[in-house]
Amino acid sequence: MKKPVATVGISFVLTACFTVGTGAQPLGGAFGFAELSDISRECIDCHRVDNPGLYEQWGDSRHYRANVGCYECHAADRSDTDAFLHYDRMISIIVSPADCARCHATEVAQFTASHHSKAGRILGSLDNVLAEVVEGNRGMVTEGFPMGVSAAAVSGCWQCHGSEVKVLPDGRLDPATWPNTGIGRINPDGSEGSCTACHSRHTFSAAQARYPDTCGKCHMGPDHPQKEIYEESKHGIAFFANQHKMNLDSPKWIVGEDYSAAPTCATCHMSATSNQDVTHDVGMRISWNNRPAISIRPEVADAKMGLPGANVPWQQRRNNMKDVCLNCHNTQWVDNFYVQYDGLIELYNEKFARPGLELYALAKPLKRSTAFANRIDFVWFEIWHHEGRRARHGASMMGPDYTHWHGMYEVAKNFYSEFIPELEELIEKGKVSGDSEKIRAAEALESKLAKVLASDDHKWFLGRMSPEEAATRKKAVEEFRKRYDQ
Amino acid sequence: MKKPVATVGISFVLTACFTVGTGAQPLGGAFGFAELSDISRECIDCHRVDNPGLYEQWGDSRHYRANVGCYECHAADRSDTDAFLHYDRMISIIVSPADCARCHATEVAQFTASHHSKAGRILGSLDNVLAEVVEGNRGMVTEGFPMGVSAAAVSGCWQCHGSEVKVLPDGRLDPATWPNTGIGRINPDGSEGSCTACHSRHTFSAAQARYPDTCGKCHMGPDHPQKEIYEESKHGIAFFANQHKMNLDSPKWIVGEDYSAAPTCATCHMSATSNQDVTHDVGMRISWNNRPAISIRPEVADAKMGLPGANVPWQQRRNNMKDVCLNCHNTQWVDNFYVQYDGLIELYNEKFARPGLELYALAKPLKRSTAFANRIDFVWFEIWHHEGRRARHGASMMGPDYTHWHGMYEVAKNFYSEFIPELEELIEKGKVSGDSEKIRAAEALESKLAKVLASDDHKWFLGRMSPEEAATRKKAVEEFRKRYDQ
Amino acid sequence: MKKPVATVGISFVLTACFTVGTGAQPLGGAFGFAELSDISRECIDCHRVDNPGLYEQWGDSRHYRANVGCYECHAADRSDTDAFLHYDRMISIIVSPADCARCHATEVAQFTASHHSKAGRILGSLDNVLAEVVEGNRGMVTEGFPMGVSAAAVSGCWQCHGSEVKVLPDGRLDPATWPNTGIGRINPDGSEGSCTACHSRHTFSAAQARYPDTCGKCHMGPDHPQKEIYEESKHGIAFFANQHKMNLDSPKWIVGEDYSAAPTCATCHMSATSNQDVTHDVGMRISWNNRPAISIRPEVADAKMGLPGANVPWQQRRNNMKDVCLNCHNTQWVDNFYVQYDGLIELYNEKFARPGLELYALAKPLKRSTAFANRIDFVWFEIWHHEGRRARHGASMMGPDYTHWHGMYEVAKNFYSEFIPELEELIEKGKVSGDSEKIRAAEALESKLAKVLASDDHKWFLGRMSPEEAATRKKAVEEFRKRYDQ
Repeated sequence: MKKPVATVGISFVLTACFTVGTGAQPLGGAFGFAELSDISRECIDCHRVDNPGLYEQWGDSRHYRANVGCYECHAADRSDTDAFLHYDRMISIIVSPADCARCHATEVAQFTASHHSKAGRILGSLDNVLAEVVEGNRGMVTEGFPMGVSAAAVSGCWQCHGSEVKVLPDGRLDPATWPNTGIGRINPDGSEGSCTACHSRHTFSAAQARYPDTCGKCHMGPDHPQKEIYEESKHGIAFFANQHKMNLDSPKWIVGEDYSAAPTCATCHMSATSNQDVTHDVGMRISWNNRPAISIRPEVADAKMGLPGANVPWQQRRNNMKDVCLNCHNTQWVDNFYVQYDGLIELYNEKFARPGLELYALAKPLKRSTAFANRIDFVWFEIWHHEGRRARHGASMMGPDYTHWHGMYEVAKNFYSEFIPELEELIEKGKVSGDSEKIRAAEALESKLAKVLASDDHKWFLGRMSPEEAATRKKAVEEFRKRYDQ
Repeated sequence: MKKPVATVGISFVLTACFTVGTGAQPLGGAFGFAELSDISRECIDCHRVDNPGLYEQWGDSRHYRANVGCYECHAADRSDTDAFLHYDRMISIIVSPADCARCHATEVAQFTASHHSKAGRILGSLDNVLAEVVEGNRGMVTEGFPMGVSAAAVSGCWQCHGSEVKVLPDGRLDPATWPNTGIGRINPDGSEGSCTACHSRHTFSAAQARYPDTCGKCHMGPDHPQKEIYEESKHGIAFFANQHKMNLDSPKWIVGEDYSAAPTCATCHMSATSNQDVTHDVGMRISWNNRPAISIRPEVADAKMGLPGANVPWQQRRNNMKDVCLNCHNTQWVDNFYVQYDGLIELYNEKFARPGLELYALAKPLKRSTAFANRIDFVWFEIWHHEGRRARHGASMMGPDYTHWHGMYEVAKNFYSEFIPELEELIEKGKVSGDSEKIRAAEALESKLAKVLASDDHKWFLGRMSPEEAATRKKAVEEFRKRYDQ
Repeated sequence: MKKPVATVGISFVLTACFTVGTGAQPLGGAFGFAELSDISRECIDCHRVDNPGLYEQWGDSRHYRANVGCYECHAADRSDTDAFLHYDRMISIIVSPADCARCHATEVAQFTASHHSKAGRILGSLDNVLAEVVEGNRGMVTEGFPMGVSAAAVSGCWQCHGSEVKVLPDGRLDPATWPNTGIGRINPDGSEGSCTACHSRHTFSAAQARYPDTCGKCHMGPDHPQKEIYEESKHGIAFFANQHKMNLDSPKWIVGEDYSAAPTCATCHMSATSNQDVTHDVGMRISWNNRPAISIRPEVADAKMGLPGANVPWQQRRNNMKDVCLNCHNTQWVDNFYVQYDGLIELYNEKFARPGLELYALAKPLKRSTAFANRIDFVWFEIWHHEGRRARHGASMMGPDYTHWHGMYEVAKNFYSEFIPELEELIEKGKVSGDSEKIRAAEALESKLAKVLASDDHKWFLGRMSPEEAATRKKAVEEFRKRYDQ
């Protein structure tokens, strides 16, 4: 890893390397080096024996074909914080995006403008409190963390979000912070991100990065099961049955030209179409940010984080995505799909997220002040952070099971049979607390809860369906019973 | 989409097309058209540019080889409700089973006799109440649903079960009802089903339909994880490691002739053996219907739904399945397997489902009358609809983790530690309600619960194991502890 | 299946067969038979017609190439308990490890020394009580179990752990005990295990056994999701995208020589490196046994079970594993990884497992004495047996989602919001029970619980964070909120 500005001693790289891989300017012309450097040959003499798998992976890479060897990437400047002397050569272990940018400037610039590169900035999020305080302790003491650090953060959060890599005095990397390929890793040179999060060492293959499982390293599990949703969707079904037709190794890889059997995650969110270049900013085609409790538009999120995407409205991003869709679907299909997707987001936002957030805020004075010290904290957290996201992501990618059973069903179940009873208990306890402030808070919460439950969205829970609707439902149920004997 | 009877203007298709794909009458002879129609050539002129992926998928299909082009399937009659004029040609977007039947009559007839084609008839089921009332609201207003419709049904239930497609005055399809490839889709021509549910557009490939992930579009998740069970089973393990030996593209695809490395879902439930033709009625080889709270025989379910399968007893269907099994297993193996499977069904039915249903019915007067307005509604629903099915499906396909950990363990856990406590609470509340009707109901429920718990199946819960059994268990546990220090 | 000592009538096998497959003595030289035996030819005459799939699988095997036919494996001695006469030949259905050992002695010896082969000894474990008593009943009556047996054990536990196979008087196998390929199956000849658990019939392929899904037959699900963790990890990601480079069919299959694209389960736990032979004892490279509530060292577990591994300390096993890692990673990487892994184990052990076990033991006099007759039994069981294992296994294989969301998050959530409230309820009830013994027990539990919660690991729950830490956290949360508007 080198400081972005450091070029002394490694200027040979800059001379020989051309920017590659932009869609606008397709591959071609001179590229790479005429032959492998003598220094890299020296590296190989040992590492081919000590780490034969690593050596072979590199041998299977485009880097090998371009004579980009060990030293071309791992060379370091004496002033680099993580530089160390290794058999007379200054090298560093971490190759940061700033290093990769010397040849792949466009890709790194796009990536650096994306949420992906900022994933390390989770300090202070609820997730972080969980891993550091609730799940964790300070029992993991390393040279870099003499006061201790939470092993749950080290092996959990940080492995996806990225660690802040600490360099020890002798140039080694603190074991709590590395190994780490989190996509938002904060590197010793201050750059954010890790290209090997997707382009795994030491093949750095585009094909690997296009493979859906790569994204599934992080985009899976109870809180954002994009991988599982993709696998359920028609897109994933078509991909796994037709991998041999996907031409994943093609440098150009334009949908509708180089392949058409199925889209992968990359196809829709990053890769080239006949109208769009590939981009390493994954947010440029999404029209909802479904991360928060209430879904927002991506440019709003970008503005908060100071990203250039603040100036790219969701409509433009949606058009970018539609351009991908149209390769295999007609206009009416695509437009109708977005009506369905928006409908689900609105349902979740309005029926559950907005009133839920308000009720949860009103409950605050009635519960222990520490986050996650109350059962209701977990209940509400999972409603929006786990189940609500599953529903929204499910709808975004047409995985009906995640939209419904893993999503809205769980949201509704826990809203009515866990969240509301917990609120009712807090109200009861508050009212008999003898503490005038708590009594007031309990009354305010009670009044709001009554209002929510009496609203059109929730009055069924009180048995207040309109007689017509109730009659219609009853008849439907009876007919169904006759049919299926349930 | 055309009305099944409409042949004016498209009679050329009927002339040229022969029934294909029945096992009894294998492929051969003249088939398809001598050349691609001029009208289809016109379609292609634009769509190869506007939707290149779609065009290429079709180019990769057997339809292409048979000169079956865009217009051959999408041609519509002026009288079709969803017909519209598109550059001087009457076409429709939806190609319904009635359309496919013009060439694939046998397959559509089989499919139409199956439960698959009736999946859209869920109106009135508990699942439907969930999506429409509990999870949903009427916030999604479209031209076809001026009073609103639940987005949870649109993007959830309907995507597997099928929507009732609504055609708008201008021939467009209402966005709440389409895009939709639900297997029981109710089409504008009244036909039920969607062939593209499995034979994905626009390759319509048999290989794709034979691939297990295709079934996994719907047969997965908490309530019927057949895909996950298959993946755990020896069958799935063998398939994924040996895909290259599966010969999935073979038109004939007879197990034991064309492939032997592994069975897919299709192999066992649909595809040809040397003794049986392929069938598109997926119910003809199953001997239990594990959908309801208590498993029933498939002919009983068929009778209720008015399907011809009412006349096909389970024994005959089981023999059909055994004919598949015997390709790779011996008779004793197969017979013994069915003893194991039946044993699990009986255990679940008798120990949990039957008493559970009775207790739940007795609890009715003691809880809020609206379905899912009580916590116990979710608890009981998940016991039979989620966990109980997982156990039964797990046993049917030999996925032990689903039989036990995801299945019977969850059934038992929730029966004893959620369902019974909820019943006890209802009894307590009922007894002190001062309402004579409720008091009577509470006493009836209490008496039944006591009887259930005192039965041989449940008396362990009260600590009433026979002394011999208790002693045996204690000894076993002690020996285990010594061995494993648990 | 033959008794290990029985060689009469089958000595021809011993004469012609050489030990194969040990890494130390690679394949080569004469092996197998010059031609297929006449008896096996007779078997084939019928079975090629009756069970063509089975016949073709064998035809695809190395056994076929070595002229090892049906009779070479299935031949039985008249004195074998499961021998029966089949068209004038004494055969048995089960081919046990003792049978396989006649050609594959080294592999069977290694396997027999491993935990794998002892998996049938679960009688008396909590899992077993669950399946037999809590989930099960004695409703499944077979000839071998006239008093009945639990169908949940038959189709659940036993399918992974192995059944104790019962031979009926006529030589048939009791259907409750077979079909069964559980890895610790107790065979009629007294040998333990089933080689076909991994080397599926009738190809017995090494490639199949090296494929990760094979291990996933059992190593998956809520209590030990190794398959799911592998799929999330960089290792699994690389494997599934690069299967075509894995050379899985290679007999030698040395990592770094024959393949380098990815490791499978076998690579790390069993297969050869340039320094280590392949081993069929899967415990020789693991440095933690994460099965019990508190993780222990593998040699401790081996000693308890009387296995030779008692003499192989964890440090040696860890060095074995590091030898694998170093093929693709450098020394610092590997050493640092183990710091991370150990850190997570210590966190789980010290913060949750140790105090949890103590509290649970103190709660014993306050609850119903039958295991799993109390809600808290399930709560505590899942904390260590399900969630705690997921966290530990997640860290061991670098699957951060399993370490955190499926693991430590669930451990912490259920510890604080289920386990502690259940303990508090037991304390309250005990204190007002009027039973002096219970009152004493409740006071002891109360005192211990207070001590646990006041400890550094748990005091946050009581809001007793140090002012500095609280201030730091508050600031971090505020900055995060500003950034993300959560």
